[in-house]
Amino acid sequence: MHSIKELRDIIDQKISETRYNNEPPGLYEPITYLMELGGKRMRPVLVLIAAELFGGDVEKALDPAIGIELFHNFTLMHDDIMDKAPLRRGKLTVHEKWNENTAILSGDVMFVEAYKMMIRVDDNILRDVLDVFSDTASGVCQGQQSDINFETRDEVSIDEYLQMIRQKTAILLAGSMQIGALIGGAGKDQAALLYEFGENLGLAFQLQDDILDVYGNPEKFGKQVGGDILANKKTYLLIKAKELAGRETYSELNQWLTGPHAPGDKIKGVTSIYDQLDIKKHAESKMEEYAAKALKALDTIAVESPGKALLKGFAEQLFSREH
Amino acid sequence: MHSIKELRDIIDQKISETRYNNEPPGLYEPITYLMELGGKRMRPVLVLIAAELFGGDVEKALDPAIGIELFHNFTLMHDDIMDKAPLRRGKLTVHEKWNENTAILSGDVMFVEAYKMMIRVDDNILRDVLDVFSDTASGVCQGQQSDINFETRDEVSIDEYLQMIRQKTAILLAGSMQIGALIGGAGKDQAALLYEFGENLGLAFQLQDDILDVYGNPEKFGKQVGGDILANKKTYLLIKAKELAGRETYSELNQWLTGPHAPGDKIKGVTSIYDQLDIKKHAESKMEEYAAKALKALDTIAVESPGKALLKGFAEQLFSREH
Repeated sequence: MHSIKELRDIIDQKISETRYNNEPPGLYEPITYLMELGGKRMRPVLVLIAAELFGGDVEKALDPAIGIELFHNFTLMHDDIMDKAPLRRGKLTVHEKWNENTAILSGDVMFVEAYKMMIRVDDNILRDVLDVFSDTASGVCQGQQSDINFETRDEVSIDEYLQMIRQKTAILLAGSMQIGALIGGAGKDQAALLYEFGENLGLAFQLQDDILDVYGNPEKFGKQVGGDILANKKTYLLIKAKELAGRETYSELNQWLTGPHAPGDKIKGVTSIYDQLDIKKHAESKMEEYAAKALKALDTIAVESPGKALLKGFAEQLFSREH
Repeated sequence: MHSIKELRDIIDQKISETRYNNEPPGLYEPITYLMELGGKRMRPVLVLIAAELFGGDVEKALDPAIGIELFHNFTLMHDDIMDKAPLRRGKLTVHEKWNENTAILSGDVMFVEAYKMMIRVDDNILRDVLDVFSDTASGVCQGQQSDINFETRDEVSIDEYLQMIRQKTAILLAGSMQIGALIGGAGKDQAALLYEFGENLGLAFQLQDDILDVYGNPEKFGKQVGGDILANKKTYLLIKAKELAGRETYSELNQWLTGPHAPGDKIKGVTSIYDQLDIKKHAESKMEEYAAKALKALDTIAVESPGKALLKGFAEQLFSREH
């Protein structure tokens, strides 16, 4: 059983060794560029942990793990175009460094590469792995579309929001674990439990993200604290605040959202309303609800392995993170 | 053995019956829209013909045939963004009717749907079919990237041009036939011969397109005759003309390409240079060279089937088309 640090190193090593076509110029450089920007490698690590949990070999799970990371980075490449994001992990996004057309087309070919890596599994699980991967991929696109739709809608319910983050974020963690489990030799029911673990972990993870965006330590967060507030992003915190606010607070909140304000004032103003309504606690309690569900699914898995403790540790580390 | 008309009807029927997710709003409508704009359905027809050629059942090849058509239309959706094309088959392109972000994301999920259809084959050929499909998909992206690169290059050689159209157009016809053959029960060597047929057919087809763009009958062509000339597109005709032109003609040609001219004058001017250099004949002779190679590969296939005559007819029909 490898440690998370060791697994991350194995993945980083593999990514830096992976060579794509050189031809034609311009098509594959953005893939290498984006893949080598780093990151937590959470999804491929989960593939490997899941494989090892059932006694599988990390080597056998490595190509599909890279496939998951390729897919994840392909969605980032295209999402960054849609969001007109200038930076990704502190570096220029692909459409800024090259141009939009390059980001579209390199993304497309990156998706093909993801499938090519994904099929490097044994024949007896090939179809199951592909089914999980394709369903995950459509789900992620659906989540992104909902996220876009929400931007121009006046009201979004908590349930709609949770469904959106389930698709956009949680199911890829879940799918990663399910694929890893299949590679590791798990039966379908055990793999499904690991999916459940990953899905709830992902939901908790995204809620944590929403909380950190407002309450994170500015020195450790890596992004601007309050970014979601400035963008009027309909996060769990904002939706919950609207739900709980009385008429006066609601109208005060609305005024911060619609009027022209200095950025610092807006962040302070909205955060102060969140504080009055105890929104952080509400969000944390929802997050803990999902975390508990995740751990329960994990406990139910019928396997004795140090991998379980590792996954518990992984989850705990996620929930105590400051960035 | 079905006729081409019957196969096309089967495909159109299947496309009009295929339902995608309804949720979330905005993601799947563009897929239905683009798929139902019609077209010759050349690629899925080739899948079905290839399957029948080896005694396979059209029903078994239908889902992967639709997968090929989904893939083809996905590339059109993204290419149209890159080319800023306002119209496709006389109707608004997806990024014009909706917007660019929708065209990016619907295209992405369309690609997933293509893979989902493609894997509906028997287990014993699943991996081979996926290999052909993924290699074809990367090749098409590579061809599109070369096409983009050529726009900003001063000179493109005939060989580079032929390699570009091989990737952008020919290999998808080739891959369609190879996949159909595998589904029909062909051995790998026979499937490879059909790939060769499709590849050469595709090259001939694209050269025919280049010729028709200049010499097509305006009433039947469907697009503006001379569109490539107005766009300074480096087609086989233009590259060949530059290669064959003496110094004076070359400079005259260059003047048409660089100076400001009324569109009608430019088309006439360049066409007249093509006429002087007998470019149409050169292009036709190259086209016939590929057509002959295609038919030779077809003859070599060790199967007695009316499908061979059908494919010959299909090829002949392509080369006598006026649009």
